[in-house]
Amino acid sequence: MARRCFVGHAPVDAWPADDRGLAYGDGLFETMRAHRGDLPWWTAHWARLARGAERLRLPLPEAGRVREAARALLDGKGGVLKLLVTRGQGGRGYAPPAEAVPAWQLSLHALPPPAPPAGLALRWCRTRLSTQPLLAGLKHCNRLEQVLARMEWEEDGIDPSHVQEGLMQGIDGEVVCATAANLFVCRDGHWLTPGVERSGVAGTCRAWAMRVLDARVARLQVADVETAESVFLCNAVRGILPVARLGARGWAPDTPSQRRVVDLRARLAAEHPAFEMEMS
Amino acid sequence: MARRCFVGHAPVDAWPADDRGLAYGDGLFETMRAHRGDLPWWTAHWARLARGAERLRLPLPEAGRVREAARALLDGKGGVLKLLVTRGQGGRGYAPPAEAVPAWQLSLHALPPPAPPAGLALRWCRTRLSTQPLLAGLKHCNRLEQVLARMEWEEDGIDPSHVQEGLMQGIDGEVVCATAANLFVCRDGHWLTPGVERSGVAGTCRAWAMRVLDARVARLQVADVETAESVFLCNAVRGILPVARLGARGWAPDTPSQRRVVDLRARLAAEHPAFEMEMS
Repeated sequence: MARRCFVGHAPVDAWPADDRGLAYGDGLFETMRAHRGDLPWWTAHWARLARGAERLRLPLPEAGRVREAARALLDGKGGVLKLLVTRGQGGRGYAPPAEAVPAWQLSLHALPPPAPPAGLALRWCRTRLSTQPLLAGLKHCNRLEQVLARMEWEEDGIDPSHVQEGLMQGIDGEVVCATAANLFVCRDGHWLTPGVERSGVAGTCRAWAMRVLDARVARLQVADVETAESVFLCNAVRGILPVARLGARGWAPDTPSQRRVVDLRARLAAEHPAFEMEMS
Repeated sequence: MARRCFVGHAPVDAWPADDRGLAYGDGLFETMRAHRGDLPWWTAHWARLARGAERLRLPLPEAGRVREAARALLDGKGGVLKLLVTRGQGGRGYAPPAEAVPAWQLSLHALPPPAPPAGLALRWCRTRLSTQPLLAGLKHCNRLEQVLARMEWEEDGIDPSHVQEGLMQGIDGEVVCATAANLFVCRDGHWLTPGVERSGVAGTCRAWAMRVLDARVARLQVADVETAESVFLCNAVRGILPVARLGARGWAPDTPSQRRVVDLRARLAAEHPAFEMEMS
């Protein structure tokens, strides 16, 4: 697994041990699908990173320098490219330094195992997402809630090859997302997805799917998901992920709304050949 | 500033760039007052770290090895010793590895500037703390809320030497703590402190002060603090910190309850000579 680290625009051999990303999770990240040395959704990823950086008032390296380093690291290959940017070193405890110099790294990872052809099996996570409007929507590095949710598989003796993802509710019980993907449900022929103003991440693939499906933001309860005509997950690495099962509830693959999910995957693959491999 | 890094029990020259502490804030820390090469509250700090590690199911290095490394780093000196422990490397995204090997570091820092002799000046922070019972009380590394709160000084043009700390409310409006200290208020002659079951940190100095003052946990609104007979903050680095002012509200130093805060400081200094230096 290849990795490159930088402080400001200078390559460094080692990550600084007094980095604020490590101390406080004071940073942002993007996990991007790479294909033949390129990053098909680079513009959307950088735009989200820039929105997060504005909210956290975190200085970013120059986009051109990052993309150049990404191309060099990819060297024509594909996979998953992770970009992590932190506020770097310094400051007085929680107070950031007046002039922060960002630290950043790029790392190239193998693609996750392909989704089952019939669709994902999901469970409900017990871990709930806290409400924090100041951080909601951002892909920041405070991810202990997701780590706790993912630890439930081990705690409950669930085989991750049998149940691949879990849905998370907010503290108030509303459904927010999966541990590492956004959620769409079809009800009365309309596509709905939870808002990301109080918790959750504003996914790049979510934005794409919302445009294509003309989906609406809606508050969803557990029963709204379980009684939906169809459900899918999406993220920028795995694209559109049909769902076959959620606990005891199953969705047959041959309904009109399930076929729309398959069509959506095909459309994504046509727009971005990176996602062809995920097609069953 | 001296620092030592370890993976498992082996010293390492550099912090691993793929550490889960950096990626997700998947770690815990303790900030300890060091005095003449020793850590007076070591037992309480390690106990809290162990409680956090149990909650996060994060393996810890052996306490004896950490304390030995701390003594070597301190080398008879005093100051602030920070211990950071993360879940180390590995895992599949948010899912931790089955057998994590913790990474940890010790770093020695100068004491913060002494508090003003008349007491601290406080403000109300706009940033609110989210409710997350699974993480509340722990000194974990997801600290973006505290970073955002501390950034308000710069945003609002507040001189940190004029207003030294800020009080934070939870999402629901209840008062929780300061950005880096616990809060006690005296009402009707009784000492009260907010609970840490929904947000906040179960401070080691808070536990000491609760015992000594026979303080009660109470839900406090903004008005309960502003109309209190006396207010103080505390943490394990700075001990007991009398408060002179909160926004427009001032507390005279010569009231009976303010004198009890001064007495509490004296008692702490008698029990732990490390805190003598903070006496005005």
